[in-house]
Amino acid sequence: MQAINVSIDVDKRLWQQDLRGSRAHAAMLAKQGIISFNDAKTIDDGLAKIEDEIQSGVFPFRHEFEDIHMNVEARLRELIGPVAGRLHTARSRNDQVATDFRLWVRDQVDLTLQQLLALQEALLQRAEQYADSLMPGFTHLQPAQPVTFGHHLMAYVEMFGRDHSRFADARTRMNENPLGSAALAGSPFPIDRFATSEALGFDRPMANSLDGVSARDFALESLSHAAICAGHLSRLAEEIVIWTTPMFGFVRLSDAFSTGSSIMPQKRNPDAAELVRAKTGRINGSLMALTTVMKGLPLAYSKDMQEDKPPVFEAFDALDLALRAMTGMILDLEADTAKMRAAAGAGFSTATDLADWLVRNLNIPFRDAHHITGAAVRIAETKGVDLAQLDLADLQNLEARITEDVYKVLTPEASAASRQSYGGTAPDQVRQQIQRHTLRLKERRL
Amino acid sequence: MQAINVSIDVDKRLWQQDLRGSRAHAAMLAKQGIISFNDAKTIDDGLAKIEDEIQSGVFPFRHEFEDIHMNVEARLRELIGPVAGRLHTARSRNDQVATDFRLWVRDQVDLTLQQLLALQEALLQRAEQYADSLMPGFTHLQPAQPVTFGHHLMAYVEMFGRDHSRFADARTRMNENPLGSAALAGSPFPIDRFATSEALGFDRPMANSLDGVSARDFALESLSHAAICAGHLSRLAEEIVIWTTPMFGFVRLSDAFSTGSSIMPQKRNPDAAELVRAKTGRINGSLMALTTVMKGLPLAYSKDMQEDKPPVFEAFDALDLALRAMTGMILDLEADTAKMRAAAGAGFSTATDLADWLVRNLNIPFRDAHHITGAAVRIAETKGVDLAQLDLADLQNLEARITEDVYKVLTPEASAASRQSYGGTAPDQVRQQIQRHTLRLKERRL
Amino acid sequence: MQAINVSIDVDKRLWQQDLRGSRAHAAMLAKQGIISFNDAKTIDDGLAKIEDEIQSGVFPFRHEFEDIHMNVEARLRELIGPVAGRLHTARSRNDQVATDFRLWVRDQVDLTLQQLLALQEALLQRAEQYADSLMPGFTHLQPAQPVTFGHHLMAYVEMFGRDHSRFADARTRMNENPLGSAALAGSPFPIDRFATSEALGFDRPMANSLDGVSARDFALESLSHAAICAGHLSRLAEEIVIWTTPMFGFVRLSDAFSTGSSIMPQKRNPDAAELVRAKTGRINGSLMALTTVMKGLPLAYSKDMQEDKPPVFEAFDALDLALRAMTGMILDLEADTAKMRAAAGAGFSTATDLADWLVRNLNIPFRDAHHITGAAVRIAETKGVDLAQLDLADLQNLEARITEDVYKVLTPEASAASRQSYGGTAPDQVRQQIQRHTLRLKERRL
Amino acid sequence: MQAINVSIDVDKRLWQQDLRGSRAHAAMLAKQGIISFNDAKTIDDGLAKIEDEIQSGVFPFRHEFEDIHMNVEARLRELIGPVAGRLHTARSRNDQVATDFRLWVRDQVDLTLQQLLALQEALLQRAEQYADSLMPGFTHLQPAQPVTFGHHLMAYVEMFGRDHSRFADARTRMNENPLGSAALAGSPFPIDRFATSEALGFDRPMANSLDGVSARDFALESLSHAAICAGHLSRLAEEIVIWTTPMFGFVRLSDAFSTGSSIMPQKRNPDAAELVRAKTGRINGSLMALTTVMKGLPLAYSKDMQEDKPPVFEAFDALDLALRAMTGMILDLEADTAKMRAAAGAGFSTATDLADWLVRNLNIPFRDAHHITGAAVRIAETKGVDLAQLDLADLQNLEARITEDVYKVLTPEASAASRQSYGGTAPDQVRQQIQRHTLRLKERRL
Repeated sequence: MQAINVSIDVDKRLWQQDLRGSRAHAAMLAKQGIISFNDAKTIDDGLAKIEDEIQSGVFPFRHEFEDIHMNVEARLRELIGPVAGRLHTARSRNDQVATDFRLWVRDQVDLTLQQLLALQEALLQRAEQYADSLMPGFTHLQPAQPVTFGHHLMAYVEMFGRDHSRFADARTRMNENPLGSAALAGSPFPIDRFATSEALGFDRPMANSLDGVSARDFALESLSHAAICAGHLSRLAEEIVIWTTPMFGFVRLSDAFSTGSSIMPQKRNPDAAELVRAKTGRINGSLMALTTVMKGLPLAYSKDMQEDKPPVFEAFDALDLALRAMTGMILDLEADTAKMRAAAGAGFSTATDLADWLVRNLNIPFRDAHHITGAAVRIAETKGVDLAQLDLADLQNLEARITEDVYKVLTPEASAASRQSYGGTAPDQVRQQIQRHTLRLKERRL
Repeated sequence: MQAINVSIDVDKRLWQQDLRGSRAHAAMLAKQGIISFNDAKTIDDGLAKIEDEIQSGVFPFRHEFEDIHMNVEARLRELIGPVAGRLHTARSRNDQVATDFRLWVRDQVDLTLQQLLALQEALLQRAEQYADSLMPGFTHLQPAQPVTFGHHLMAYVEMFGRDHSRFADARTRMNENPLGSAALAGSPFPIDRFATSEALGFDRPMANSLDGVSARDFALESLSHAAICAGHLSRLAEEIVIWTTPMFGFVRLSDAFSTGSSIMPQKRNPDAAELVRAKTGRINGSLMALTTVMKGLPLAYSKDMQEDKPPVFEAFDALDLALRAMTGMILDLEADTAKMRAAAGAGFSTATDLADWLVRNLNIPFRDAHHITGAAVRIAETKGVDLAQLDLADLQNLEARITEDVYKVLTPEASAASRQSYGGTAPDQVRQQIQRHTLRLKERRL
Repeated sequence: MQAINVSIDVDKRLWQQDLRGSRAHAAMLAKQGIISFNDAKTIDDGLAKIEDEIQSGVFPFRHEFEDIHMNVEARLRELIGPVAGRLHTARSRNDQVATDFRLWVRDQVDLTLQQLLALQEALLQRAEQYADSLMPGFTHLQPAQPVTFGHHLMAYVEMFGRDHSRFADARTRMNENPLGSAALAGSPFPIDRFATSEALGFDRPMANSLDGVSARDFALESLSHAAICAGHLSRLAEEIVIWTTPMFGFVRLSDAFSTGSSIMPQKRNPDAAELVRAKTGRINGSLMALTTVMKGLPLAYSKDMQEDKPPVFEAFDALDLALRAMTGMILDLEADTAKMRAAAGAGFSTATDLADWLVRNLNIPFRDAHHITGAAVRIAETKGVDLAQLDLADLQNLEARITEDVYKVLTPEASAASRQSYGGTAPDQVRQQIQRHTLRLKERRL
Repeated sequence: MQAINVSIDVDKRLWQQDLRGSRAHAAMLAKQGIISFNDAKTIDDGLAKIEDEIQSGVFPFRHEFEDIHMNVEARLRELIGPVAGRLHTARSRNDQVATDFRLWVRDQVDLTLQQLLALQEALLQRAEQYADSLMPGFTHLQPAQPVTFGHHLMAYVEMFGRDHSRFADARTRMNENPLGSAALAGSPFPIDRFATSEALGFDRPMANSLDGVSARDFALESLSHAAICAGHLSRLAEEIVIWTTPMFGFVRLSDAFSTGSSIMPQKRNPDAAELVRAKTGRINGSLMALTTVMKGLPLAYSKDMQEDKPPVFEAFDALDLALRAMTGMILDLEADTAKMRAAAGAGFSTATDLADWLVRNLNIPFRDAHHITGAAVRIAETKGVDLAQLDLADLQNLEARITEDVYKVLTPEASAASRQSYGGTAPDQVRQQIQRHTLRLKERRL
């Protein structure tokens, strides 16, 4: 029983939040006249001493006291005597657990928000650098149309920007104070829940005490957002793994983010990218763990909820590592722009540009334009040249009205430059987006 | 191959969104001079005809045309001839898929938002009715302290209120227009993505074309919120199952929401509640399905993404049924307030009230107050009476300073009434919250 | 990078398996003449010394050596010098990782198999004790027909028996040796993989070296079986939570498996049962974590696979705790047979027995028999009595051919005793099954 | 309520199993003298008529009769009158549901077993064809050592072989008959459960009636095995996607399994492979759906269990499609052996072979051998040649004892051929495994 019941090894990570909560509670009790200011002072000094003990590693964490709350309470009694008992007035372990955990998740969300900004900054920096560098835009992992590497990286700025916005929304929603819910029914003491809310940085008290002790949707929502973010990271990580295989050779990571082989110099294992990709598993698993735990639990507190912390701790640890590793990789990677450019031009990648030119300039219906383009590609294939290397005569044989002007769209550079629609891959467009996001990030950093 | 590739049986649900998107696109093309107004008119008339055909059930859905987009396109050509081809100018199936699906999810989120309001209204109505009705507040499914049934129901108003807020945030975030991303790189035609955004009710175009065709986080986020909401529904459903078992007998559902037995009149199976509880499975499964699909997909479009629709369709269907069934049950249920009251008073449920009284009125430290209360409970147990039925003398034997005043907290009514802290179970507090939420809902309904 | 890459804190749990694998490998290398017997002896002594160091807690686990394999290798070099390097002949970290992990999972499956036997033995013991004790058989948590508590417990013997069989099958299937796969392509050295297989208790070597280093289905299968078993545990745990709520009061757990309240003597929180129920979350989450990690990984080894261990370790830890806690609870619980019997008789629970009697004895069609029974129940309800307390005249008014014999089926005892079909709830049947399973378990214990 | 309760649209897929179960039950009832042979004949004829009606598409499926069982029962009454009611003697919808669903899953497992054999046969055929074709063996998607394409394909034969074995075990375990469990307590009628077991192909009756109606682990186990198998399919599908990208160009799929572009001849989207990869999501999601549904359900039947069918139906449909598509692709694919061979030889892929040669032939310790090899690679790199193209003098400068013999291991062909350990990539070894598996499959086909 003790083996399954004891949680101190897990929940001791909440020690800072536990002390913050207790100090805010004690101060409020005194302000409201529920305990004396003297007692509150004694309690606060005791808690400060405990903080020192934990920080300096001398605090005696003990299994006999089950969890962090009981460990702190027991130690407080040892340090300041029976007055420690007054701290528990108008409070229950149930609302204490809820408060500590919520504070921890909020702290971790704040960290995540910062890390998402840093990752976006790294991406922006690289997007700026590679705003004109061509690469194949893939669909189905088949080269489809030329894009710029900067444009590609900016797609991830969008994704991580939405991830940031999701975590920000979650933070706003979770920023309500469960403290004062007591065991489940509220308290008969004249407590001031708005005061503890302010002291702990909460926007307001939660408005229903049963909900206060039994809600865990703030944790589930954070896990969901972490899972979605991990999904984005896994996509970028997969791309890095693909880009760094010698068959592609688009990108090179330094030794800081890959492991080599002493005897196979070309082999550079993108370990960090693979691990980032794999962290998705851990985070998805954590989300599924907590949804399963919470399914069908009647109100208010059930012991099942003790199992809320491991998945959340593990998911945020994994996300923290993954975000830092990805930011590091983005800052570290070096593109082989020549290889990318060569690949961008291969495979008649500007065929759709030719078709579009025919539609746009000769008002040929889409379907006919496609037909002509197909014929041009077949001629180029036979001659072993690119579309841009076909003679004008060859093209005019297919459609007499084609002019020299067509060559403006037949190189990958021209193709990319022509895609001037909002959000398109034209370097101008990409630079506009870089600028917009740079400003936005600066504002968020303030 | 055809068996695995064809999606028309699934994605034909997108027909309305597909037509809306196409009509907006055609109008924009004409406005921008990319196609003629005449052609645009012909196309629009053709699409209107298709809308009629689908609504009247005569539209020929055909497997040979793979998906809804090709079915509509093929039919349009049959109806209006080659000009149909011009609709596809400056557009790709990739951004069409992304646009249609996003519009569908947005529509479904709008429906969910309405249903969450209706469910909260039903709960508020019941909470008002039962604002004074006592029941045991449970922890660990053990009666802990008296609460009111109204208070208990209001806990769910809080939860579903947060669910509403989550879906509202998701709606805001997803309300960006992928149309105009073309295949993946944007378009060389002078399209106006702000115009199609406005026509389709989007706040703005998505700012990166690669992101436009490959983002599915809007769907994942909706599934996450659905899963969290389903978790809340499963908790309430579990409680209804427990409350309606004869061993509890707290609540009765009519035949509309339970199935009886012709020969066992007491047997009333809470089928609807069980099914609501079970829908959590379907919705969690859908979330896991899509996270798995999206893991590690390189940009831009991969065919894997075709598997995004089944889980989303199924999850929203399940959520729709579950929300409607739960709203129906809440409006239908009848509480056996006498049974609830009796249970609320059993088991020395006001013991903590006695302890709190001692702390509050006699300034006895918490721990000593607990000691005295334990002794009082043992006396009551021996005498076979409730705490409220103990003689004052019995209590004064334990602590001489106890006065008649103590009886004010020893009944479940007194216990509940005393919990006046913000969000507490005291009927006054509950009524304040009912009023606050009623106003809030009215505003949202406007 | 180091932060995300280092795994020693996790995989040091594999130390025993790592040493076993290395000793078997060294012995085989010597036997095959690949290294000298002297070198093999030196290596073996060094590994024995490392075993001592780890067991006595003095082994220097170091982050600089990344994982358990490198830590052991580095330490071996410190202890025995350059000859340590010969151990790595014809072996790669890839097959070493695969071998160690497989051995660990196999050990843990063996433990689980023993624990499942112990749990079944506990259930059998209780089923024997309560073979005649009546309780309501529930559907939809509504009392449906009387069953015996012994019969109910035996249902779980069936489930845990299948769980045992599943783990046994998994053990057989996983018991193949990856060692000798080398990095991925096999080895040019004349190694004897059958010899290491025998030394490590494997049935045979794995037959494809690429598969050898990249297969993780043995881990996934174990997690699946753990998840199914956890599901069974969660059902029994839920029942214990329900049975111990005072509204049911069917079962009482001692202080060893519940936590009480000093001032609320009736409150006995079934913490252990709740935690067992919650462990399902952890185990499901682990399964989902590893399926996600493995999705879409190309052969052979990818670093992603380093993320295989945390979910497996956590799931087996959770299952270990849950199985032990459940066995403890079963041995600990005490049934309130009087309360169960009373509940079994309430609510006209023998109505179907009356209908069946009419069909069986009077050859009345089912539907008519139901009609008559419904009428009888209504009379009993009006009179405020049970079916068994109705006068014969009352029954004969409904159907003249009814005789005294009918009363033999109208008590819960009679109802249960009549269900003599194979696997039915009649105490005789239950005892037969107890006997059958007792013999089966004895055989397995041999 | 009806909307959430009705299941006929889903469970009508069970019609064959429902009829089989009913016919077996009726025959047994007659044999046991519970109903007359005449009645049994009438019932059987009626059920045969229903079978005809369903097969010919004229059976009236009706929502008012909720599910397949009630639809059949109601129709039977219409066809044969009140005697239809006798079919329900000694049977309940609960055990009927359990029996039908178990039969359906067993049928589907049988189909899956066949499909897994077909897929293995396809792989064996290709492995035979490509037993000598070299390709790079990858770790971390980086070329590591040469392997043969045959060897690579055989790794999947191992995986799908274990999948087959898992499904076979599950089939054995699930092949027990729930029929005769009645509602939950067994039956008072003298039914013969062994007779219905035999008639329905079950090995024996389930031994506990409560377990009979509430067990769903057979479905969960099948879903688990499907998920593991889908994981294997996703790995192979990912490889096909990678192999078919022009940057690799290892493999080409015909139009039957890829979709091209009329104007981009090189673009061949591996749609089928992507869809197979994506089906993992659906199947994982189904597994998670059912685990969630079953978590914490008390015995015996709860309506939640009605949600067992959609995930199982969907998962098996997805697995069916994925297995067929994969078998088709394997039979369809054509390897570009020249490209593969070239890649196998690039990047000093035989460096470990040189190191191994030094250890094996000159008894140089591993670490020193690696040092020498690293130096050789650097010389080759400088000279712009492969290891096999280095002069012997260059090598002897590094280590004087190196002889001509070393060149026998420096080509990819030699490297592969040297890996003769059991399960290694040497063509001989691969052919042995092909032979072993071919025999094994023939036996299974018998």
